[in-house]
Parts: sequence; structure tokens; C-alpha cells
Amino acid sequence: MKNVALVGYGVIGKRVADAINVQDDMDLIGVCDVINDWRIQNAVRKEYDIYAATTDAEKQMKASGISVKGNLQDLLDKVDLVVDCTPKNIAAKNVEVYKKQGIKFIVQGGEKHQTTGHSFSAENNYKSAVNLDATRVVSCNTTSILRTLTALKRADLLDYARGTLLRRATDPWESHLGGIMNTMVPEKDIPSHQGPDAQSVDPDLDVITSAVKVPETLSHMHYWNVKLKKEASKEEVLNAFKTSSRIKLIHYDQGLVSNNTIKEMFLDMGRPWGDMYEVALWEDMLKVVGDELFYAYVVDNQAIVIPETIDAIRALTGIETDAHKSIEKTNESLGIG
Amino acid sequence: MKNVALVGYGVIGKRVADAINVQDDMDLIGVCDVINDWRIQNAVRKEYDIYAATTDAEKQMKASGISVKGNLQDLLDKVDLVVDCTPKNIAAKNVEVYKKQGIKFIVQGGEKHQTTGHSFSAENNYKSAVNLDATRVVSCNTTSILRTLTALKRADLLDYARGTLLRRATDPWESHLGGIMNTMVPEKDIPSHQGPDAQSVDPDLDVITSAVKVPETLSHMHYWNVKLKKEASKEEVLNAFKTSSRIKLIHYDQGLVSNNTIKEMFLDMGRPWGDMYEVALWEDMLKVVGDELFYAYVVDNQAIVIPETIDAIRALTGIETDAHKSIEKTNESLGIG
Repeated sequence: MKNVALVGYGVIGKRVADAINVQDDMDLIGVCDVINDWRIQNAVRKEYDIYAATTDAEKQMKASGISVKGNLQDLLDKVDLVVDCTPKNIAAKNVEVYKKQGIKFIVQGGEKHQTTGHSFSAENNYKSAVNLDATRVVSCNTTSILRTLTALKRADLLDYARGTLLRRATDPWESHLGGIMNTMVPEKDIPSHQGPDAQSVDPDLDVITSAVKVPETLSHMHYWNVKLKKEASKEEVLNAFKTSSRIKLIHYDQGLVSNNTIKEMFLDMGRPWGDMYEVALWEDMLKVVGDELFYAYVVDNQAIVIPETIDAIRALTGIETDAHKSIEKTNESLGIG
Repeated sequence: MKNVALVGYGVIGKRVADAINVQDDMDLIGVCDVINDWRIQNAVRKEYDIYAATTDAEKQMKASGISVKGNLQDLLDKVDLVVDCTPKNIAAKNVEVYKKQGIKFIVQGGEKHQTTGHSFSAENNYKSAVNLDATRVVSCNTTSILRTLTALKRADLLDYARGTLLRRATDPWESHLGGIMNTMVPEKDIPSHQGPDAQSVDPDLDVITSAVKVPETLSHMHYWNVKLKKEASKEEVLNAFKTSSRIKLIHYDQGLVSNNTIKEMFLDMGRPWGDMYEVALWEDMLKVVGDELFYAYVVDNQAIVIPETIDAIRALTGIETDAHKSIEKTNESLGIG
């Protein structure tokens, strides 16, 4: 049993905390943040031990009636590993503290690869993370790219992949941050950062992406043109994708025609926040033309990295050295597959 | 001087009417529709002669105080050519009337290629339309595809092209028709219809498209991955695009970062309705990687086919047999370039 701290109780952090909490081989010792509003009340309701990241925050939390167990240092003293889900820049500072104290840590995809020297995607490179001191769970978009392209690579089908990424404007709960209305906003740089980011996990991937922000908040959508190593049947391609337990093949003809219908289905399923941990890939839209493959899928930017983070904890702490076993265990605990 | 009728005074029709009206080699004899609300008042203000498409419509128009010059037949008796901009299905019926009377006609991209047996894109196949009885000006998306790929083809750079089309949800003035909110809705079929549609003009093009509807109303955006015939420099590619007077190279770094900023610039320029007749292609985003080309552009779905329609009138009536001369004349009249 390993003791784990969660630092940064935001959109990703609150989900990671709940996911850690349902594992039988790790203990969530506490969550640490600076907020004292409705957001931290969720941790209070769930009876997580709450730690304050700064002395100012501690005062304000206490003034808001929140029972504070201690400060960041108090929390770090009790754990084997920290999952840091704080925003960019803050995580980079925290990392210095973790390193100094020799505590293993995981950061999220907003951080640079250099922060940890290792980037993680369970189905691709779990083994290389076993017993490491630190890793970075790559971002939602990059995770989806790695899952799908790794599946094609395993089946020896992948030559190269070119993707257009339609990014949600901002997170569902946000009102302004990055939000846009009635327009589309491209990322200036082609290639966009997601392709090189995927290569931080798997340098062999030949992948180039372009990205554009669209005015909706539910999830991302990707369109891919893939050059296969050889002509293949649609069945061969689907069989390749089926080797991933975290790619969910969905059917347009069964009414799943958009991001919002997919979201509603996951809410129907009773997933917390309607979370979709899987890449939802349209089986009936997928098309093979000679040695070219075309498909589209949806990525839940708040949820897809949650199972990855749990696997990363197992890899770093050495609780489990076998990728397949960790993935199965995580999947079962979160109701995937 | 050729006499032209405009049937169907909607989003495209009202623009075509104004464009015909500023040419010196064709006369707008009248506009014909069934509407009697604010929309037709625009034609009244512009002092166009108004004809009623049905006897019912004629009664209602007169009841609304609109001076009606006659019915569709009265209009047809006075013209050499009809531009039909009515909605799908209605145009198909009208076409039977035009054919029976031996009047030349142009339909818009919503109609099938079979309706006319010829599809038109000025920079690609003007010559093949000269003195024909009928043609179809291809849709906004297809027009943009043809302009850009024809430019690459002229420079002998184009091997094949794969595009992802982000379509506006509905026209700016519409409240519900096709409108979507806070989601994305893919077209089920890959390839989407625009690729084959471009091949109705130029069967040599190797082009495959996917399309997805996004919740905004201003314009479409396309992302393209193009395989070049050989490795090329960015300059060579830009020079190819510069051979089209209807591709406008724009700069992200000069603040044109989205559909809405581009729209505002064209409103600043005093274009009617802020119309953008050009494909607005980001020069600084464009990227060449070996023999692969990546770029994105914006398409004004209400405006891009207007100059094409004027050129099609010249080709069909034989006023001008030279594509280049017609395109230049149209451009000058509409302030393009």
C-alpha cells in the first residue's frame, strides 16, 4: 500500500483524488490547495483530509470553516508520491520541493517534458516508467493520439498520421478563460504542439497536427488522415483499435451524432460528471481508401488522463510492474470496458 | 448586352442581383420570388423590378404594398438567361420551365451536377462553359477547394489533397435552420460530398474531405494536408497561390486570428454585408514539411460564389470567351484584388 498526496484540487485534481480513493493498493492521504470556495467543499463532503498550500490560504480556509489538517510540508511528510495537478508555473515551483525531499511525483500534460524527463501513456510506455522518480502524464489530446496510433502501430499498420484537432473553447465550468463565441480561432503554429508532445512518449511516431479552437465547452474532436503501411481492410483497422481497452467504438447510426449526445450517454451511464475516460471513435464513420485511413473521435479533456494517472502511480511506485495488469485493474475500478 | 433574370432572392440571390447590377455588359431585368416580408423590401429599396413566382405570392405581395411587374413567365419572356438561386427542390422544378422555353440558366451548388451536366469554377473550367445552355456554380466549400487546388495544380505541385472542413452551423441571419449550440456535429459520411463535388468540375483532382459542423455562423474554415509532387519551398507554394486573384493571403501575426476578425476587416473595407469573395488563406500558418503542405483558410459561404456566378453568366451567354478577361472584369466590378 502506497501513500499518495494530491496537490491542486481543480478540474483534473478532483477526479484524480476520487480515482485514487477507489483503488485498493494506494491510499489518498490528503488533498492540498489554496481555494476556500465551493470547489474545496467537494473535498469536504467526501471527507478527504485537506491541507493548505500556503499560510495565507490556511488562514482563509479556516475562516471559511474548513478543517485544515496542515500545510503542504505536513502532507509531504506522510506520502510516497505526489500527484501534482496545479496550473502551469505553480507545478514547476512545487517540483523543486518534491525533488529536494526525494518524493516521487507526477505532473500533468500542461508541464514540459523536461520537468520530469519522462512522459507517460499507459498503453505505450508503462514499462519505462517503472520505479522512476517522476513522470508527466501527457495532455488529453496527446493521450488520445497515443492510444489510437499505438493501437495501429501494434498491428504494424501505421506509416504516418496527420490530424486536425478541434479544441473545446474552455472547460465546462469556466465562464471566460479561453472562451470564444461564434467564431473559430486557429493555433498559429502548424505543426501544433500535440504531435511533438506525442513523440515525447514515442519518438518513432510520425505525426503532424494542426489545431483550432471552436466555441463549445464539452470535449475535443479529432479528424485523422493516416497513411497505412499497406492496403488494409476496415476490419483489420477496427481489430487494431479493439486491442485498446480505452478506445470505445461508437456508432453514428445509433444516434451518437455529436459531442453533446456522447456526453449525455456517459451521464446516463452514471459516470461521475459524465466522465468519458475512453477515446470515443466512430466505427461507422471510419473509412479505408487503399492504404489511407480516415476517422474521427471525441476526447473528454477532463477525464481521459484520469486512468493514465492511476497507472502512472503504480508504475512509479513499483506496486505493479506489468502494464497490462495495471491497466486492467484501473479499468475495473473506474468502470471502463 | 444580355438580359438576365434573378429567381430566388435569398442569401445568395440578393448578392447576385447586386453584382449583376454593377456589370456593364449585362442587365438585371428583374428579381422573382414568393416572399413579401422585410427581405424583398431590400429589392424595393434598390428599385429592382419585382416579379412574383406564383399567383398566391403575387396577391400577397400586392397586399403588402409591393409593386409587382408580373409573374415568372413575364420575366422569362424578357431575358436571355436566368440565374436561379432558389432552395433545393424548387430550382429542380424551375429548371424544367427554363429548358422547355430554351432559356439559358445557372443553378447554385445545392443542386446536383446532373441538373445541368456541367459544373463551373471560373479559374478551373471557364472555357468549357462558353455558350453552353446551362451550368451549376459549385458550392462555397467546393469553390474554395477548386481555387486552391487548381492553383497548386497549375504550378505542377499537386499530388493529392486531404481536407477537414469545419462548417458554420447556419447562415448568419437564420435563427434555427441547422443551428447547433455548444457541440460539434460531424457529417456521417467520410469522404464528405465536397471532394466528389470538386471532381464534377475537375475529374483529375485527387481530393478527399471530411466535414463537421461547429456552433458559429460567420464562415467555414478548412484545414488541408496536401501531398506535393515533389519537395518544394514555402515560397514556391505561395507563388502558386498568388496566381489566383481570388485567394487572399492573410497574416495571423497582423491580428487576423479568427473568423470574426476577418469578417470585421471586410466590413471595415466597406464590402456590402462585409462580403469576402476571396478564400482567406493564412500565409504565416502555412507550412511545408518535405513534400507535404499544410494550410488553413476561411470561406465566406454567402459571398464566395458571387463572382463565380457573374463569370458563369459571361461564359454561358458568350459575352466573353476568355476566362482571364471575365475574371478581371468581375474582380474590378466587385473590388476584388
